[in-house]
Amino acid sequence: MRHFTSLEDVSDINKLIKKSLEVKKDPFQCTGLGKNKTIGLVFFNSSLRTRMSITRAATNLGLSVITLNVNSDSWKLEFEDGTVMDGASAEHIREAVPILCSYCELLAVRSFPSLINQEEDYSERVLMSFIEHGNVPIINMESATVHPLQSLADVVTILEYQRTHKPKVVMTWGPHIQALPQAVSNSFAQWANAMEYDFVITHPKGLDLDRRFVGEASVEHDQEKALEGADFVYVKNWSSYQDYGKVMSDKSWQMTLEKLKLTNNARLMHCLPVRRNVVISDDALDSEHSIIIPQAENRLYTTQAVIQQILLNL
Amino acid sequence: MRHFTSLEDVSDINKLIKKSLEVKKDPFQCTGLGKNKTIGLVFFNSSLRTRMSITRAATNLGLSVITLNVNSDSWKLEFEDGTVMDGASAEHIREAVPILCSYCELLAVRSFPSLINQEEDYSERVLMSFIEHGNVPIINMESATVHPLQSLADVVTILEYQRTHKPKVVMTWGPHIQALPQAVSNSFAQWANAMEYDFVITHPKGLDLDRRFVGEASVEHDQEKALEGADFVYVKNWSSYQDYGKVMSDKSWQMTLEKLKLTNNARLMHCLPVRRNVVISDDALDSEHSIIIPQAENRLYTTQAVIQQILLNL
Amino acid sequence: MRHFTSLEDVSDINKLIKKSLEVKKDPFQCTGLGKNKTIGLVFFNSSLRTRMSITRAATNLGLSVITLNVNSDSWKLEFEDGTVMDGASAEHIREAVPILCSYCELLAVRSFPSLINQEEDYSERVLMSFIEHGNVPIINMESATVHPLQSLADVVTILEYQRTHKPKVVMTWGPHIQALPQAVSNSFAQWANAMEYDFVITHPKGLDLDRRFVGEASVEHDQEKALEGADFVYVKNWSSYQDYGKVMSDKSWQMTLEKLKLTNNARLMHCLPVRRNVVISDDALDSEHSIIIPQAENRLYTTQAVIQQILLNL
Repeated sequence: MRHFTSLEDVSDINKLIKKSLEVKKDPFQCTGLGKNKTIGLVFFNSSLRTRMSITRAATNLGLSVITLNVNSDSWKLEFEDGTVMDGASAEHIREAVPILCSYCELLAVRSFPSLINQEEDYSERVLMSFIEHGNVPIINMESATVHPLQSLADVVTILEYQRTHKPKVVMTWGPHIQALPQAVSNSFAQWANAMEYDFVITHPKGLDLDRRFVGEASVEHDQEKALEGADFVYVKNWSSYQDYGKVMSDKSWQMTLEKLKLTNNARLMHCLPVRRNVVISDDALDSEHSIIIPQAENRLYTTQAVIQQILLNL
Repeated sequence: MRHFTSLEDVSDINKLIKKSLEVKKDPFQCTGLGKNKTIGLVFFNSSLRTRMSITRAATNLGLSVITLNVNSDSWKLEFEDGTVMDGASAEHIREAVPILCSYCELLAVRSFPSLINQEEDYSERVLMSFIEHGNVPIINMESATVHPLQSLADVVTILEYQRTHKPKVVMTWGPHIQALPQAVSNSFAQWANAMEYDFVITHPKGLDLDRRFVGEASVEHDQEKALEGADFVYVKNWSSYQDYGKVMSDKSWQMTLEKLKLTNNARLMHCLPVRRNVVISDDALDSEHSIIIPQAENRLYTTQAVIQQILLNL
Repeated sequence: MRHFTSLEDVSDINKLIKKSLEVKKDPFQCTGLGKNKTIGLVFFNSSLRTRMSITRAATNLGLSVITLNVNSDSWKLEFEDGTVMDGASAEHIREAVPILCSYCELLAVRSFPSLINQEEDYSERVLMSFIEHGNVPIINMESATVHPLQSLADVVTILEYQRTHKPKVVMTWGPHIQALPQAVSNSFAQWANAMEYDFVITHPKGLDLDRRFVGEASVEHDQEKALEGADFVYVKNWSSYQDYGKVMSDKSWQMTLEKLKLTNNARLMHCLPVRRNVVISDDALDSEHSIIIPQAENRLYTTQAVIQQILLNL
């Protein structure tokens, strides 16, 4: 594995899961691996879990960390080729990326979609610019269309809690007040399809995700029917893919303790941040169903496993 | 000592002072103590001294440091229970704190009061949320009502400069143009009362601090009378506690070299930042009375002593 | 060398260049040199290359790094003496600098000019305040009038690529849409004059730089004539020094591949960030003439050489 931009970069998903669990058992096995090396964390967007967990993961491996908040520390970057740069952007990605690469042995990038231009977002222009113009490994800290560090933590968490060989995993849309990316949902669908799950996606009509990510998953528009017998319920809001970026807010889709009773005593998952009593009710979040905190904790170990594998391949 | 949220967490104040002076003599005695551990610095508000001194103190102990500026790096957090989160806050403290705790062995928090809702501020809602929902030691980097890292540095500085067994220490209100918290003043009063000082608080009428912090201190409304015979003059502005958050700006209370002449050649102290020629005049700040810079320098050693003791108890 | 504020602090420029090339060959020769020491990076302005390269350079030397973004992490500082601080500034530089010095063994400062008050800018008020009120070495990360870390990287880069003993080096003004400082141009002129270059500055009339920096350089107002026989073309915009801060935008001065054909197959240089197709055309930037990326990479090694030499003198 050179880059970690999506599931497609992972040659052996089970090996990566196993490595994550090893890291969790002993995070300080490889404290010398990153010696004299630096990872640059390039944030085009806000972050809490990702920022903290990747910093800690890098530190556990002896890597130095330089964080660049592009918008506040630096200036607007231009991604369009051939443009006359007489607007807001002061530097072109064609210069910025090679230079970041000459100061850092690894780069990690967070860049959300515009949710305005679907084609541009789904071409992963920002992330791909780092690959194209750079010469160091690139780690995706959530891009326009996927969030593989989250998905790896998700499948590791399911493995830790699953009681059957082939659990029923239901990803359900939840209401929200803002236009959110499809990245976490796309990515979870992609990874779930690669696992031995009975995988169901449920959402109101008109909220279909990109078929490339949905793959062979079952799609069910009746939430209650989807939840029947579920071992895991993964709640996530996303804005419309078809009517691109449109906010759909059907409050009846909020996850509640009442709905969780329809499941096979399912574990409740969410990538966070979660708006309480909008996406998921307090009674569900504060119930014994919830494995949201351990799910987030796993972000640390899985990220460390990813960096560790990349460092070993350098 | 598990947490360091106020004087009440300190079982032996003299031991902590002694430890601070030991750290000052040799800050590199325990460079391995923080090995493989990380302190997360969570800032809800701006900082210069606290940010720099705690980072340096942690580094001297071999701790890794992750700084989170909540407002710019992340998103607004919700502290109210049971609320429908359809407003500005994207994440609840009930999720944020346990997760920060899973990435960091220690957390330090800075959160100023609103100065609007006295009851909420004086309940220390933000700081207490970290204690309630977390499972790691919490260090107070200035909360709504107290600033114990400052106060510890203050009493250590007084010890270094005192010429008598029981010095007269006068905390005097100074004018300001903005509504400032009562935290530094409350906290200094609390710590001063625990020391063998002849402790006097002087301020215009209507600016009484919360009685819980004033304790047995003498309160004097005639500033000149209060300054007579003082060995230490601690200047600080605070907004009204009774008429909560109201700015009172009586320029005649500005500390000057002229007024310092009324004292027993007193040392001049201030927690900084200080607005020159508003709170204290240039001639006082630039006189030999001032020990403001060594007072600020002590922030480093006292903070290191606090972290050191917490690490030893982990 | 105690401080590194401009060329005037450098006693032996050739030794510093040689040291930079040694660092480039092996950046990990002195990983213990900064042990138990911290460099404070004080940014009054945005930065990408400088921020990243100095952080990495310090890390390579085993220094700890504390970054302070004055405007976002802290509050506005006052530089004027004797003022009544009842405005936006909450802390005076007379307090801030000594305190930063008590937490850090070295400080680096970035502070751009106002481009409004020439006298104030050219007195280097901010940078000089750090020297005046501090007691640790100060490194200039670009001040109102010079950017010596950039210039050192520039002369090292020229040395690496020069094919003759005395190369013809042309610094040409390029158009821009905003008022940019003269610092990079001043500084490059100053350093170029200290090297064995045939050094020519070309710019439209009315854009003369301060004579103290131009020194003995040839000044030519015909860009094409200046470019004839050039071995190195250094492009840079600056706003007017005489009509202080005025933006002059003569698009005909844009550097293009066509113009580079007039040269002796010159290397193209720029300090970055560069607005493509405003200052320099795509075809020039993407041509084999460009050594802009290696020039920026050298920022790392030259900065490390500077810090290394300062640490050795501590």
